[in-house]
Amino acid sequence: MLVEPGRIEIAERPVPTPAPGDVLIRVRTVGVCGSDAHYYREGRIGEFVVEQPLILGHEAAGTIVAVGSGVPEDRIGQRVSIEPQRPDPNSEETRRGRYNLCPHMRFYGTPPVDGALCEYVTIGAAFAHPVPAEMTDNAAALCEPLSVAIATVDKAAVAGGSRVLIAGAGPIGLMTAQVARAYGATDIVVTDLDPHRRRLAHRFGATTTLDPQTDDVTGLRVDAFIDASGAPAAVMSGLAAVRPAGRAVLVGMGAETMELPVQTIQNRELILTGVFRYANTWPAAIALIRTGRVDVDALITGRYPLEKTAEALESDRIPGNIKSVVEVGTS
Amino acid sequence: MLVEPGRIEIAERPVPTPAPGDVLIRVRTVGVCGSDAHYYREGRIGEFVVEQPLILGHEAAGTIVAVGSGVPEDRIGQRVSIEPQRPDPNSEETRRGRYNLCPHMRFYGTPPVDGALCEYVTIGAAFAHPVPAEMTDNAAALCEPLSVAIATVDKAAVAGGSRVLIAGAGPIGLMTAQVARAYGATDIVVTDLDPHRRRLAHRFGATTTLDPQTDDVTGLRVDAFIDASGAPAAVMSGLAAVRPAGRAVLVGMGAETMELPVQTIQNRELILTGVFRYANTWPAAIALIRTGRVDVDALITGRYPLEKTAEALESDRIPGNIKSVVEVGTS
Amino acid sequence: MLVEPGRIEIAERPVPTPAPGDVLIRVRTVGVCGSDAHYYREGRIGEFVVEQPLILGHEAAGTIVAVGSGVPEDRIGQRVSIEPQRPDPNSEETRRGRYNLCPHMRFYGTPPVDGALCEYVTIGAAFAHPVPAEMTDNAAALCEPLSVAIATVDKAAVAGGSRVLIAGAGPIGLMTAQVARAYGATDIVVTDLDPHRRRLAHRFGATTTLDPQTDDVTGLRVDAFIDASGAPAAVMSGLAAVRPAGRAVLVGMGAETMELPVQTIQNRELILTGVFRYANTWPAAIALIRTGRVDVDALITGRYPLEKTAEALESDRIPGNIKSVVEVGTS
Amino acid sequence: MLVEPGRIEIAERPVPTPAPGDVLIRVRTVGVCGSDAHYYREGRIGEFVVEQPLILGHEAAGTIVAVGSGVPEDRIGQRVSIEPQRPDPNSEETRRGRYNLCPHMRFYGTPPVDGALCEYVTIGAAFAHPVPAEMTDNAAALCEPLSVAIATVDKAAVAGGSRVLIAGAGPIGLMTAQVARAYGATDIVVTDLDPHRRRLAHRFGATTTLDPQTDDVTGLRVDAFIDASGAPAAVMSGLAAVRPAGRAVLVGMGAETMELPVQTIQNRELILTGVFRYANTWPAAIALIRTGRVDVDALITGRYPLEKTAEALESDRIPGNIKSVVEVGTS
Repeated sequence: MLVEPGRIEIAERPVPTPAPGDVLIRVRTVGVCGSDAHYYREGRIGEFVVEQPLILGHEAAGTIVAVGSGVPEDRIGQRVSIEPQRPDPNSEETRRGRYNLCPHMRFYGTPPVDGALCEYVTIGAAFAHPVPAEMTDNAAALCEPLSVAIATVDKAAVAGGSRVLIAGAGPIGLMTAQVARAYGATDIVVTDLDPHRRRLAHRFGATTTLDPQTDDVTGLRVDAFIDASGAPAAVMSGLAAVRPAGRAVLVGMGAETMELPVQTIQNRELILTGVFRYANTWPAAIALIRTGRVDVDALITGRYPLEKTAEALESDRIPGNIKSVVEVGTS
Repeated sequence: MLVEPGRIEIAERPVPTPAPGDVLIRVRTVGVCGSDAHYYREGRIGEFVVEQPLILGHEAAGTIVAVGSGVPEDRIGQRVSIEPQRPDPNSEETRRGRYNLCPHMRFYGTPPVDGALCEYVTIGAAFAHPVPAEMTDNAAALCEPLSVAIATVDKAAVAGGSRVLIAGAGPIGLMTAQVARAYGATDIVVTDLDPHRRRLAHRFGATTTLDPQTDDVTGLRVDAFIDASGAPAAVMSGLAAVRPAGRAVLVGMGAETMELPVQTIQNRELILTGVFRYANTWPAAIALIRTGRVDVDALITGRYPLEKTAEALESDRIPGNIKSVVEVGTS
Repeated sequence: MLVEPGRIEIAERPVPTPAPGDVLIRVRTVGVCGSDAHYYREGRIGEFVVEQPLILGHEAAGTIVAVGSGVPEDRIGQRVSIEPQRPDPNSEETRRGRYNLCPHMRFYGTPPVDGALCEYVTIGAAFAHPVPAEMTDNAAALCEPLSVAIATVDKAAVAGGSRVLIAGAGPIGLMTAQVARAYGATDIVVTDLDPHRRRLAHRFGATTTLDPQTDDVTGLRVDAFIDASGAPAAVMSGLAAVRPAGRAVLVGMGAETMELPVQTIQNRELILTGVFRYANTWPAAIALIRTGRVDVDALITGRYPLEKTAEALESDRIPGNIKSVVEVGTS
Repeated sequence: MLVEPGRIEIAERPVPTPAPGDVLIRVRTVGVCGSDAHYYREGRIGEFVVEQPLILGHEAAGTIVAVGSGVPEDRIGQRVSIEPQRPDPNSEETRRGRYNLCPHMRFYGTPPVDGALCEYVTIGAAFAHPVPAEMTDNAAALCEPLSVAIATVDKAAVAGGSRVLIAGAGPIGLMTAQVARAYGATDIVVTDLDPHRRRLAHRFGATTTLDPQTDDVTGLRVDAFIDASGAPAAVMSGLAAVRPAGRAVLVGMGAETMELPVQTIQNRELILTGVFRYANTWPAAIALIRTGRVDVDALITGRYPLEKTAEALESDRIPGNIKSVVEVGTS
């Protein structure tokens, strides 16, 4: 529980009772996301401010241990990957199938909604996605960031033979490269300042890696540019690299505003958009992991027990770190 | 013929012979576009520089008077609206149906390609679109800017019941408002600094007009925002006005780069794009004028003979001016 | 209440109490649909069989008189158009925004779910759409069939300058013609065997009407063919009339299977689909009526009090009948 | 040269001179297609009738040996895959980017246009696609049927995690399975009567194979059904297998008309379409082969010299045959 910036405390709380339509899940694994670390350090992300003790964590998997009314009893015992959102079923956005944009969303680990870095959580039954026996708990938890990558690649309209440029080889960039490959992209250029991450990128789908400090991408003429860096320079050069009528998808979090090459967007009729979480991605995420098209387990570089959550939240500063997970109930 | 910035001269040139596949057209009307006036005053637009005498004009209509080999003789005598572009049929963009983005395009009145402010022009036979007898020459010429408006409204995905915000009530803004109405938009908000233009906007489709200096648009939650102003402030506030998953289309020419609200684009998954001319719009342009869904004749505020081309190019500074046309061969 | 085929009885039932999230509506107008008449006469439509007394009617408007828990009290008194469906918010189809295809749908007047031909009904609060004061109760009720027309025109991808062929000038055909016009279609050909209906079609958007017994449509090369007849011959000739890559949308109910011109579909890459009710159409329906783009009041040819529901259900056999409404509480 | 049904003769003809914009290609490999065999046996396909001696063959690769005017000399010596079509650049379909539907198309080996089963052919320079050195001549020739598969999978909207049902494990079915896998489909069910072909299907992407005589597919609820069989029973059961709002793409050639389950199409809002050749598929075809995502060489079961073309055309009757190629100039 984040009690103030930089201070995590363990607290005992009663096990929640699942509301009608909900399931109660015993948590097994929680992945650590950059946004968790950001809340931990700063106490806020943009307009979302931690004003009272908050449980972080939204990349989670576990086992259903109880069900609320209206949920079949036979779901008890299922291993599930948690889609950590509770949209309002009646908002216009939800009705149109883009529930990630619902203005009344309650999302795990976003103030004032508690997340999954704890022993028990509840979620709507349809947002607890059963996973096959052969899928690890860690992979089940990482369906969440993989969903971000899937939403990104969907918006980038990647298909067989696509040429894709990805800026940033952090966890999202590396997952995006894998998903782009799984969708048939045949030329995947990944840029990152860090040579270690560039080497990793080759393992996860990149056909070429470049160092943005020394290599120029602007002549690449890719079908799609995906920014997973949040760096203004990467966005500027990435947009210059897109062929006419191509796409640019901004998934990396950066500044509130950015200087963008409007005339290039106009003269080439580029299509620019952003990704805000995901909707309806879990079936694809589970299928891609199950069939080995993407490998999320291989991205895990650190494993921590629940008691060492603070360490896990700091682990992004360890050289070579890509993705840490907190394994609950293993100590 | 523009011989240097600010100087138009009349010159005698031989009547061209239509190449194979081309038609020769006796010009009747040429609309004056802001880009013509810009070349006239500055001698350049971005990287396009007038380096030798150039005939301006790309909004043109006339009558076919001769045909090149391979073109049926019975086209002679047809009144046509000219689509003033010559794409390379073998470029990848042309093959994919977006010939406006062809890198080898030769476009009327864009250095070094001459335009239509003269007595005779040639164009590919398929780019000389026959118009019905009841359509005026002026309307036939204005199929060109109307095509820009159609391309814009298409990209904005306007449909029945759409709510649209249009910044700028110049010729393109007013045509866009008309086209949006013709596509079923039921709420059309137009902003312009000029009260006269705001009044005009009501005549051409606007259901509400606002003064950007005093009125706030950011809460409108429109389905689509169309910028026909090129003004950074209009783009910033316009993007803030778009509902989640809505569209923003930049058609107004402005600065090379602009500060854009990237987090808004991301958090609402807005789709931002630009318009560069048009492809395959003439059939719709002619049909919309023919059936009275849009009225382009009513936008004409000045008519000039060919000898007064320079005056026509200056006419955008006359208060109340919207669209001037040069009527060739009428003096 | 339909107690057996051909027999409607009036029964007293307690006024329902709105469940959580629901509203209670005092019904004012109920339109009579062909499917109501079909249940009335045959007792079934395909696999849906009336096995116990059933209240028919799904085109309804009224006034909210009570709200269930969780619904703001200030909705009481609102005049609303009823979207007569209750999808399961957690089904995959609903989550993807196409809740009309939800397999667990409960739909008004479809066995065993009662409809609106009564004094009081309940529906989910988000499915009771407020209408403006100037909209008539009848028009509010007819948002329902208008929604079918909107869903059809959306699937037909009608836009400015579209050429559309509509087979059948019954209520749905005539509404579809109006909606196609509102979306910018400039050539709207309507076919019907009945000369009276062909005359009406001209009033509601048709630019040409044809008699399928004597006129050949196969050479029309329209952008979209919409079948609102259910007649196999109309579908065959209609598909032959579509240009390459054009669309065909089947909205008229007909036989379970039909002989279709598969080679034409292949050689022209036609896109064929069907319409099953609607999703997310009410905002557009209300906006199109409010702004006068479509006129549904003008389609009403018969008005009946609730006591004469059986007569209303028979009225489709009256020559010249287009659409009957039952006005509840007016006698 | 096909002189009459069932009779192929070798004839000497002068080497053609490439017209302006064309290239002259020395043919190396020509794949044999079912349509070639059909012309060979029947002398016609539908309305296309062989009325004078015709050179068959449209799956071809070779080396550029001369260029027409306007084509860079440095293309001489390039190994190329031939896209065997000559659309009219000015037809509406070509202008819209779907040149495969151009009504003035001239296509190899389709009466009266000669094909590639000969030593030299010409084609537009932009339709002779350079292939990398490591790609075999046979693979270069098979870019043509692979393009059919790519066009099919594109229309089926296959993406990561898609579930696909393919009826028919002939050359097109097997290539379609490979392409679907390359686009991220994770569940690929292939049906075929022939157990040998079902075994092959597993090698080329199928995750499940079924025998349509004994296995029922109707409950599969796939995202897309692709018919590569032309068999009415396969189409009927395949359409029943598609989830709501899913797609069905008919690529197999069959009867002119077919009984189709119209109510299923309507009630589930299925999207049905067909494939007629391809447009703009060669870059993807070459990229997918180059990167090993699809393997077309492995489909070749018979190789014949040009002199044995008749044998090659008969080879589809050899048990176990999948794809035969004629290797020109190798004997």
